Amino acid sequence: MEKMLVFGHQNPDTDAITSAITYSHLLNELGYDTEPVALGEASEETQYALKAFNQQPLRVIEKAKPETNTVVLVDHNEFQQSVADIEELTIFSVVDHHRISNFKTSGPLYYLAKPIGCTQSVIYGLYQEHHVTITPDLAGLMLSGLLSDTLLLKSPTCTDEDKKIAKELAKLADVDLEEYGLNLLRSGTDISPLTAEEIVDGDAKTFPLRSDATLRIGQVNVVDVNDALDRKEELLKKMEELNKKDGYDAFILAITNILSSDSTGLVLAKNESLYQDIETAFNSKIVDHELDLPGVVSRKKQIVPPLTEAIK
Amino acid sequence: MEKMLVFGHQNPDTDAITSAITYSHLLNELGYDTEPVALGEASEETQYALKAFNQQPLRVIEKAKPETNTVVLVDHNEFQQSVADIEELTIFSVVDHHRISNFKTSGPLYYLAKPIGCTQSVIYGLYQEHHVTITPDLAGLMLSGLLSDTLLLKSPTCTDEDKKIAKELAKLADVDLEEYGLNLLRSGTDISPLTAEEIVDGDAKTFPLRSDATLRIGQVNVVDVNDALDRKEELLKKMEELNKKDGYDAFILAITNILSSDSTGLVLAKNESLYQDIETAFNSKIVDHELDLPGVVSRKKQIVPPLTEAIK
Repeated sequence: MEKMLVFGHQNPDTDAITSAITYSHLLNELGYDTEPVALGEASEETQYALKAFNQQPLRVIEKAKPETNTVVLVDHNEFQQSVADIEELTIFSVVDHHRISNFKTSGPLYYLAKPIGCTQSVIYGLYQEHHVTITPDLAGLMLSGLLSDTLLLKSPTCTDEDKKIAKELAKLADVDLEEYGLNLLRSGTDISPLTAEEIVDGDAKTFPLRSDATLRIGQVNVVDVNDALDRKEELLKKMEELNKKDGYDAFILAITNILSSDSTGLVLAKNESLYQDIETAFNSKIVDHELDLPGVVSRKKQIVPPLTEAIK
Repeated sequence: MEKMLVFGHQNPDTDAITSAITYSHLLNELGYDTEPVALGEASEETQYALKAFNQQPLRVIEKAKPETNTVVLVDHNEFQQSVADIEELTIFSVVDHHRISNFKTSGPLYYLAKPIGCTQSVIYGLYQEHHVTITPDLAGLMLSGLLSDTLLLKSPTCTDEDKKIAKELAKLADVDLEEYGLNLLRSGTDISPLTAEEIVDGDAKTFPLRSDATLRIGQVNVVDVNDALDRKEELLKKMEELNKKDGYDAFILAITNILSSDSTGLVLAKNESLYQDIETAFNSKIVDHELDLPGVVSRKKQIVPPLTEAIK
């Protein structure tokens, strides 16, 4: 069997990158020939995690076909979030924790998804199932993906299973869960050196909700929302530019305070009717492009579902 | 949590019906409240299995919404093979062994698929994972689904894992694998009492391969293909009628000899170009609506993939 590439979604976060590493390792232990790669550069936070656990950054690819016909997806399944030539490839397996949408195969495959806080918790279960040893460095990488995706176990997507696994992994990695987690998240929230495009589009995904409503939804984590709002005009200008260039009908940037677990939305839509749909989704007024999102920290669980419901 | 309905695909075969029973039992053992139901009447073969292992036939439903908002799919995922109101329901989980297509959810879910011979083998693994006891009757039902879907372990979809599980289940059910399997398959191959519609459409699925090529593919198992070919004119007439009524562009009936593991295809397409596509798919001439399919026993693995490739 030819070598398979294993990768997470575009604009990779820490769960996407570390899951590619740990799932690829598992497959190799089971006798397959795989290499973890990434569909984008590692963020500051991810680099912090990789450095902490002695892992080199992953090679970044845009297309898989030049190297292989067979790929493995982690932490995503929607084709528009995947490698550019995904439709031409055979998908060997998927391990994920998201909804399933815009995904299809022509043959049967191994697919495991669980409705839990991160892909690393699903992968942890597979290590147990196959009795493969989790080294301290692997445990640290798994823990980093877990704490990043669950915002230090505080996200509403975080389950009791994630919490139990986090404790186990912290022990295996020999780190203090709280202390390491805070350092990890802080490493990713210094936005002062970032360009406007890096802030609005660095962790953004496209959601084609209706034929006339393709939404781009970005998220940036901070410890003070004013770090981002102080640059509001610059961010809105960049969102307008990306809407035009890439054909989005609306851009929403969720600025998430990871300490208080609240968000402020920055919204730029192409027409009044879409602004109204977005207000309906969150039952909240948009004032001067700003939208209060109290208690909202999860794009997947708290932002996409109400928008999907309001924009049918 | 409200009671969930668990069901296999429309035109249920033995794997679909027995998987609903055994997965529902597992979920109930894990603390959920579920009921197995069916999207169609049990075949002769399935009735034989249910009787052998003391199981009442399942209640047949067309829609789930009057009873519940939450459902569990086994042995299928494609919406056109599911309950009529699937788009209005929340899917709690899926356990399957087919390709993934025309499937989407608005939120995360538990999804487990493996590229193996039957859904019952996947469910067997879940019983092991959760340490739930497989009673002799449950083992017999699992074995029936397994032997039916793998045509007595001879289908090319059958893996070493299926074979190992089959032996284990035969021991638990206290039956002779070969003897029970032959009796089970024979019970389902007496087509003399069946109407033409029951033969061509009794185990048929719809595949929208291209905007102008929606194929209906049926399969009937026999121990002598002449049992079906003796009624060829009658079967072709029924296929033409169903093509018109339900808007299929072609109907293919695979008449499978389960003892020799060969099939003969009966083909009725709406135009010459589709006949040619089908000939291309199997590299074989259609003569007087008949198509030789030597070594072909699996719709999923040997019929749908070449058609998908030829009709793009």
